[in-house]
Amino acid sequence: MELLNVLKRLRQRPQGKIILLVFDGLGGLPREAGGPTELGAARRPNLDAVAREGVCGLLDNVLPGLTPGSGPAHLSLFGYDPLVFDIGRGLLGALGIGFPIRPGDLAVRVNFCTVDPKTGFVTDRRAGRIPTETNEKLVAMLNAGVKIPGCEVFVRTEKEHRACLVLRADGLYDGITETDPQTTGKEPPRPVAATDARSEKAAAIVAEFARQAAAILKDSHPANNLLLRGYARFEKIPLLTETYDMRFAAIATYPMYRGVANLVGMDILPDAGDTMESEFACLERHYADYDFFFLHIKKTDSYGEDGNWDAKVHVIEEADKLIPRARALDPAVLCVTADHSTPCVLKMHSWHPVPVAIASKYERPDGVQEFTERACASGGLGRLRGIHLMPMLVANALGLEKYGA
Amino acid sequence: MELLNVLKRLRQRPQGKIILLVFDGLGGLPREAGGPTELGAARRPNLDAVAREGVCGLLDNVLPGLTPGSGPAHLSLFGYDPLVFDIGRGLLGALGIGFPIRPGDLAVRVNFCTVDPKTGFVTDRRAGRIPTETNEKLVAMLNAGVKIPGCEVFVRTEKEHRACLVLRADGLYDGITETDPQTTGKEPPRPVAATDARSEKAAAIVAEFARQAAAILKDSHPANNLLLRGYARFEKIPLLTETYDMRFAAIATYPMYRGVANLVGMDILPDAGDTMESEFACLERHYADYDFFFLHIKKTDSYGEDGNWDAKVHVIEEADKLIPRARALDPAVLCVTADHSTPCVLKMHSWHPVPVAIASKYERPDGVQEFTERACASGGLGRLRGIHLMPMLVANALGLEKYGA
Repeated sequence: MELLNVLKRLRQRPQGKIILLVFDGLGGLPREAGGPTELGAARRPNLDAVAREGVCGLLDNVLPGLTPGSGPAHLSLFGYDPLVFDIGRGLLGALGIGFPIRPGDLAVRVNFCTVDPKTGFVTDRRAGRIPTETNEKLVAMLNAGVKIPGCEVFVRTEKEHRACLVLRADGLYDGITETDPQTTGKEPPRPVAATDARSEKAAAIVAEFARQAAAILKDSHPANNLLLRGYARFEKIPLLTETYDMRFAAIATYPMYRGVANLVGMDILPDAGDTMESEFACLERHYADYDFFFLHIKKTDSYGEDGNWDAKVHVIEEADKLIPRARALDPAVLCVTADHSTPCVLKMHSWHPVPVAIASKYERPDGVQEFTERACASGGLGRLRGIHLMPMLVANALGLEKYGA
Repeated sequence: MELLNVLKRLRQRPQGKIILLVFDGLGGLPREAGGPTELGAARRPNLDAVAREGVCGLLDNVLPGLTPGSGPAHLSLFGYDPLVFDIGRGLLGALGIGFPIRPGDLAVRVNFCTVDPKTGFVTDRRAGRIPTETNEKLVAMLNAGVKIPGCEVFVRTEKEHRACLVLRADGLYDGITETDPQTTGKEPPRPVAATDARSEKAAAIVAEFARQAAAILKDSHPANNLLLRGYARFEKIPLLTETYDMRFAAIATYPMYRGVANLVGMDILPDAGDTMESEFACLERHYADYDFFFLHIKKTDSYGEDGNWDAKVHVIEEADKLIPRARALDPAVLCVTADHSTPCVLKMHSWHPVPVAIASKYERPDGVQEFTERACASGGLGRLRGIHLMPMLVANALGLEKYGA
């Protein structure tokens, strides 16, 4: 991509460290007319201090009106245009379970399903949401049983009826039709076909996998077959370490975020633990070893998805209390933002832009006094695409030369 | 380029004149927490009046986080995407000394250097920063001595150890390796090689130039050789006069800015003098003859580069006093902006967006009361790419038809 190539030309050793705190799904909406958002309702003295000392704005991590999935949203925050780097669902599934994906791998989403033994028609596309333990047994049977010459086959459990398939061989492309009929009681799993010439090899392998899997599963009612969709070849992506002259570390409790960070060349710190507190402790332990830290806070999103207003407000307040630990490290640049909005009133990701604050010795304060969506909307950064955040952070650490003379 | 082609389709005779005042490096940063920027600290009643009567905003002349060089920044203000029209360093050097460059010319940056007569290794990449007078003598020797059949060779002095080479022949492309080893005491000037097939002709000519130059300079210690880099073929760029139905004039005291303006089809007014006052007098003298005036004020940048806060504030104040002379001409559109920021605290160009104000009978005033970075951040224009300024200025002079029916 053009911008990444330009940045690569301008890279130079930065003069300080950068901490990027991403509150997943932070953006919200008022629950009553005239009321505050979740963020607006929270006591957040430390977030407000970052906003007051820095410069604020709003970010669109895809484009205005487009609701970002977690993968695309993080790619955007890391400076990759998610409309260019279109990471397919199969791949996000593999990243989500921490599968060590390699360039050229073909990742596929798997749903265990129920088919009528007589007609072969799909009767339940989720096999009654089998328990994850059942899923694990079926996955073990598939890994033991499927044999495809010249192709490595990896099946991994996600959760309930969902699993992930990774095929590894030369020349696997993802122009392949999905087998999920998207209806029940009317047709069997659809046949696999290539939609372009270069995907014919992969289509043949996927068809063979589907055939062997059906045979292996046929007596395992209710999950007596599977459906395949979301094919995604993993194309190598330019690494952050190639673009910038910096060492990048990711601190995240969920595999998905570790996966995306790893994809773009961050080192995944293994001792992040599973609480916000343990993540900040991890940041402190490793602070000397990297130039850039991505610290991901998950819970804000989870409570938004649940529609649990009080819990979302509470977790913002708890995270706010940890911010002084990041500030005490005295980074050149401290940035607080989100990947997307997850308003409690919607109980899902939304298209609303996310607030951002960048505190740095070299930013221009803009008079914004608090870290809320509304206050950030009148900030000095204005409203920007999320892909522009990363160059601004690196610029503030003096890690980019000027463009042209 | 897409946008320029669209604009060309919409061109019509404007109904008034446009004056664009560019304060080089105007944007700044506070020198103490909570304090004003240089612009904020200046007394600027006339700039404030433009902001108050007009509409304000912030411009990114490359992209957020990217620090524009002077050439790309001006291209942006003139409506050319600097990421598309990537004017190489050799070309900016040639423009900087006012060399009458032509499409197809290959421009190259030259450094006189010192090589060890025995080993041939480069021992000083700047030849002890020889005086400009010495440079001029060496350049005269090269212009007299180098003979390359089928190729015109122009060598021109820049300053101290820096010179500019322009090669003129058919089919010269710039995929050529640099001869500067970037180290001293370890290797001789590097050989010249083409990095793509179409640049082979130019590479052979450059290699021959380097060979003859080394022979001519060999007894001129300390500048007994030269290094070549920043190769740039000058590709013809669509002219402003082709895009808009207007006559363009440039008023600038520095060759570099006259060069960029000339590149895009402006007439360079020869009687701009060398002070801000003489530039405004030049504007008055020629006001009847053109539709569009670009007036460039250099000193704001120079004092920013020096880190001289008081001088930068003072020059802003002096320029402010001249603005009534532009207003007295009663242009349809008066725009005040900058090419990039040069904060005194950084002593270099920076990535911060620049303030802009457009006063026009047909603009929507936005309530902004003063021309400062912070006030402009909440202006009605929002934050825009610099390439969008030019169409807005021409639109305000009613020089663009509507797009589509």
